[in-house]
Amino acid sequence: MRSIYLAGPDVFYPDGAQRLAAKADMVRAAGYLPIHAGVMAYPECDNRFATGCAISAVNELCLRGADILMANLTPLRGVGADTGTVFELAFMAALNRPIFGYTEDSRPHLQRIRDHYQADAMSDADGVLRSPDGLMVEHHDMTDNLMIDGAVSHRLGRILRPQFPDESPVDVFSRCLEIVIQKDDMVQRRLGKSYDTIPLPPANCP
Amino acid sequence: MRSIYLAGPDVFYPDGAQRLAAKADMVRAAGYLPIHAGVMAYPECDNRFATGCAISAVNELCLRGADILMANLTPLRGVGADTGTVFELAFMAALNRPIFGYTEDSRPHLQRIRDHYQADAMSDADGVLRSPDGLMVEHHDMTDNLMIDGAVSHRLGRILRPQFPDESPVDVFSRCLEIVIQKDDMVQRRLGKSYDTIPLPPANCP
Repeated sequence: MRSIYLAGPDVFYPDGAQRLAAKADMVRAAGYLPIHAGVMAYPECDNRFATGCAISAVNELCLRGADILMANLTPLRGVGADTGTVFELAFMAALNRPIFGYTEDSRPHLQRIRDHYQADAMSDADGVLRSPDGLMVEHHDMTDNLMIDGAVSHRLGRILRPQFPDESPVDVFSRCLEIVIQKDDMVQRRLGKSYDTIPLPPANCP
Repeated sequence: MRSIYLAGPDVFYPDGAQRLAAKADMVRAAGYLPIHAGVMAYPECDNRFATGCAISAVNELCLRGADILMANLTPLRGVGADTGTVFELAFMAALNRPIFGYTEDSRPHLQRIRDHYQADAMSDADGVLRSPDGLMVEHHDMTDNLMIDGAVSHRLGRILRPQFPDESPVDVFSRCLEIVIQKDDMVQRRLGKSYDTIPLPPANCP
C-alpha cells in the first residue's frame, strides 16, 4: 500500500485534528495510507528546543518513509506558505518523490503580495516589479515562490487553488487527491523507484 | 575546492547584487567556492511560468552540486523566512548536506508572532498557546518553524541571529561563516560523503 504524507499548517488550526482526520479518511478511502502529524508519537524532552528537534526528527523519518506528499500551501501569518510545510515539500522534492500542493487561498502569489501591502506593486526605473519597501516581486504566474511551483511542476505534480473564492477546503483537497490518483502510475514510471536510502543522522539536540 | 550555496532573499533586496557579491567574496576568501543566484545563467522562456520553472531547475541542479548551504532566514513579507530559501535549506537537508542559517532579525519566532499580531499570544482553555485568530503558536525557543531549526540542529549546524539588534548583517554572516569553517571537518566526518546522486528529472514546464 502506497502512502501519502499530508503536510500543512492544519495542525495549527483550532479544528486541526478534525480537518486532518477528514483528509486522512479520504486518503484511506482512495486506497492509500495517510501519514500526518496526528498519527505520530512524539517524545517529550526536557526543554522546548529539544522537544522541537525530536518532533522534527520523527517528521523527517516519516517523510523518508512516505511515497507521495500532498502539501497544504495556504499562507500562514504573511504572504507565503507555512515554512514547515515548505520544508517538507522540498525535502520530498530532493528525494525525487511525487509532490502535490493545494491551498485554501484562491489568489496567485502576485495578488497576495499586492494585498499584503494594500498597494499595487510598482515598477522601478529599470522596469523591475517592486513592492513599496523596494523588495523585488516575483512575477511568474505562480502560487508561491518559484522553487515551490517549479519543483512541483518538474515532478509532474500540480498545485490547486480554489476555483472560486468560496470553494470549500474539502473540495479543493478532494480535487487534488483525484489528480494524485490519476497521475500516480505515470509519475511512478517517470520518477522511477530510485528513492533515497540515506539514513537520518542521530539527533543532536542540546 | 568545497562549495557553499548561498540561499536567501538577498536577490530581492534593492542592493541584492552588492550584498551577494560581498558574501561571495567572504566565502572565496575563506577558501570555498560560492554558488548563488548572481552567478547562474537562467534561460528566458516564452511565458512567465516556464521561466520560473527554468530558474527553479537551474537552482535545483546547483543545490545538488553544492557541498554546504548557508541560508539567510530573515523573514520576508510576514513572520516566516522566505519560502524559496526554506525550500533550498530543506532540499539540502534531505540530501544530508551540512546546512547553516543566519538572520538579520534578532527576535526569536515567538516574539515575531507576537509582534505580527501586535498582541501577546495567549493560552486557550487547554493551555495551548494561540494567536488571536486561534492559530496555535509553536513555542520551542527557535528561530523559525521546528522543521527548520530541527533539521539544522540534527546536521550539527547552527542558526545565528544578531547578538544585539543593530549588529550588522555582514557581521552576522561573518560569524556564521566562521562556524561553517570550524565545523566543516567534523560535519563531513559525521554526515559522511554519502551524497545523493539521483539525477533531476527533465523539466516539464507547460
